[in-house]
Amino acid sequence: MKLKSPLKIAIAGLGTVGVGLIRQLDANGALLERRCGRKIQIVAVSARNKDRDRGINIQNFNWFENPEMMAEHADVDVIVELIGGQEGVAKAICEKSLATGKSVVTANKALIAHYGFSLANYAETEKLSLAYEAAVGGGIPIIKTLREGLAGNKITSLYGILNGTSNYILTAMRNTSRDFNDVLEEAQSMGFAESNPSFDIDGIDSAHKLAILASVSFGCKINFKDVYVEGIRHISPLDLTLAEELGYRIKLLGIARLTDNGIEQRVHPCMVSLDSPITHVEGVQNAVVVESDGAGPTIYEGIGAGGGPTASAVISDLIDIARNFKTPTFGLPINKLKSLPTVRMDRHVGAFYIRLMVVDRPGVFAEVASVLRDEAVSMEAILQKTHAPGNSVPVVMTTHDVEEGALNRVLEKFQELETVVEKPRMIRIEPLN
Amino acid sequence: MKLKSPLKIAIAGLGTVGVGLIRQLDANGALLERRCGRKIQIVAVSARNKDRDRGINIQNFNWFENPEMMAEHADVDVIVELIGGQEGVAKAICEKSLATGKSVVTANKALIAHYGFSLANYAETEKLSLAYEAAVGGGIPIIKTLREGLAGNKITSLYGILNGTSNYILTAMRNTSRDFNDVLEEAQSMGFAESNPSFDIDGIDSAHKLAILASVSFGCKINFKDVYVEGIRHISPLDLTLAEELGYRIKLLGIARLTDNGIEQRVHPCMVSLDSPITHVEGVQNAVVVESDGAGPTIYEGIGAGGGPTASAVISDLIDIARNFKTPTFGLPINKLKSLPTVRMDRHVGAFYIRLMVVDRPGVFAEVASVLRDEAVSMEAILQKTHAPGNSVPVVMTTHDVEEGALNRVLEKFQELETVVEKPRMIRIEPLN
Repeated sequence: MKLKSPLKIAIAGLGTVGVGLIRQLDANGALLERRCGRKIQIVAVSARNKDRDRGINIQNFNWFENPEMMAEHADVDVIVELIGGQEGVAKAICEKSLATGKSVVTANKALIAHYGFSLANYAETEKLSLAYEAAVGGGIPIIKTLREGLAGNKITSLYGILNGTSNYILTAMRNTSRDFNDVLEEAQSMGFAESNPSFDIDGIDSAHKLAILASVSFGCKINFKDVYVEGIRHISPLDLTLAEELGYRIKLLGIARLTDNGIEQRVHPCMVSLDSPITHVEGVQNAVVVESDGAGPTIYEGIGAGGGPTASAVISDLIDIARNFKTPTFGLPINKLKSLPTVRMDRHVGAFYIRLMVVDRPGVFAEVASVLRDEAVSMEAILQKTHAPGNSVPVVMTTHDVEEGALNRVLEKFQELETVVEKPRMIRIEPLN
Repeated sequence: MKLKSPLKIAIAGLGTVGVGLIRQLDANGALLERRCGRKIQIVAVSARNKDRDRGINIQNFNWFENPEMMAEHADVDVIVELIGGQEGVAKAICEKSLATGKSVVTANKALIAHYGFSLANYAETEKLSLAYEAAVGGGIPIIKTLREGLAGNKITSLYGILNGTSNYILTAMRNTSRDFNDVLEEAQSMGFAESNPSFDIDGIDSAHKLAILASVSFGCKINFKDVYVEGIRHISPLDLTLAEELGYRIKLLGIARLTDNGIEQRVHPCMVSLDSPITHVEGVQNAVVVESDGAGPTIYEGIGAGGGPTASAVISDLIDIARNFKTPTFGLPINKLKSLPTVRMDRHVGAFYIRLMVVDRPGVFAEVASVLRDEAVSMEAILQKTHAPGNSVPVVMTTHDVEEGALNRVLEKFQELETVVEKPRMIRIEPLN
């Protein structure tokens, strides 16, 4: 057998993931060569600071001060983009790589969620790869699974815990009954949350990933801007406790469904039944449940971030390129991707958990009940947790299925009631198989 | 873009899986064509009885009375072997297909476990595909995951629930406190167990699958004959109940580990901690947990058998062939697969659950304790569940880590004790991450 030439790569960004990638390629170099029939060889690197001690030796790689220059001029087959950010340098690197005949492997979900379609279009025209396994689910090979492993199926829905930081925070809040801000600070000090945590806790990171998964699963053009997004800042320890009493656990989920009216794409906290398959996914773990017509429900779980898992995903993309295997970027050729409308959230039908803080006095239940009646919202259960005449106490109710538009009108009316002393809290109850 | 010619296939065997495959290819034909850039076209079929009503139309396919003749003479690119059995017709079909230049897709774990190496050798020489995603884990794309999705990793261990029938039986026994034989009969009447259930309940089916997973994960020659196999016939409702009291659940697992002395490959009932990730996998579900150096632990779960899930796996193989993507059959080229010894079971070190039925009289604990002392087996806990002087009662103990050889000598000595009235029961306690 003729020895094939090495696959030459350049790495832009030497943070946790970049360093993890260099380590993993170094540790498993001989094994990878046996698997692909050729070496994967790092030729060049670029990062903000050449001299920072990263615990690895980068002497043997060409150093580029400017990653865009590297993308344009390095003599490589693939640029690995690990800088991040939806625009700026990361986008410029990917564009320059493709424009100069190099494939791109990236871990950048924001970039793919925003510009994946146009980048993929360009890559396809140039017969190059644009690969992003590392953008979703860390070490779980979920993109390959959707695009190849389940390619015999029509995928009809999926949901998942797509952000380890927010799952960690919810888990810690539940286990320790502490406030959101308290746990967030701890997570930041432990390195589980960024100093600017908004992308994680406000659901944006999950939404980036969900938009990618929806496109690959349903064969539609990626459409991040229409994803409904709600984070976990408003979740209180009280709601976490009440949820368990009602037989639920609160998880931040990304949910995508193919419906007759278009696709649902939404990220928000959910009450999920204690016996649903995703309930036990705790801490920084990620998991995705995929429903398809042939395979039925299948579940994929693993560590959602970090150097090792992300490097594992990047290398899997590199191996595909080394093996000269090209699947269409989003599972279908660009011109076959459909433009599907996203179902408006106020048309979404589901059950809801509502918590009111009310002044404990006679007649409160009657007021609450009449608001529900006026909007034809049918209640499943209502309970007042404590009794403290004259003081504020939580009143918790769950509804039967109702359109979210009607539910929102109920919440507005609740807030206008004199006895209701705080903004009503609402959490969607999600029936999962 | 030039239209590619269809991928022509012939199907041998029209049972549940064959019919499921025809249905799924029919339902998703246009979608699959968009995904692969070419049609997947059924050209010929063969089965035992042409006229049986299968609820599908096979008029448009060439009918072969003899599947071996079809394998040899049908004008197709791929033969899909769905007849089963480790030798006989199934083996002949695969050999004739490869010998006449056709790739093979099979769901036959017994065949791959026994003859996978020589078939793969032949396929590789002829530059043909031998694909068997459907042989393990039903609709879970576990072979693709190990061979491609996790290919950037050194895989160090894996374990899984690989047989839905035995998992269903254990789940039902636990939920209903009924005997093994009782639940087996019910499972047979419901179609969840074969009329000859031995392969499922004696662990052989799991062992076939484990041998395949071990080969792909560790890059070694498949070695089914050295897999340690023990089934679930001897599991009693009492043990299932006692397990839960001790904080465990009993699962039939396949476990493979790479060690300094070779590989461990074993299938047997295990006590797994109630909070381990596989404990909640119940009924006919399958699940595999893979431990690798980069991605860490990742988990894959789905329905392990049936027409839809198996068809999903077969089509995923067909799509790879249609896309002209060939990964080495066991993840490495044949000449790079290592011959690794299997670690002998009596050298296996672990903790154990032992249940004795003893005559309830003074001095029994002392006898038991002295046997353990003589073999230097250290006990973690011992308890007598009931008190019934003069009658037989269960005495349950758990050990600390000990070599299985020593444990077996303990069991022999227990059996010789006059107070022990039944064969001692032993179940391995498996620490899972």
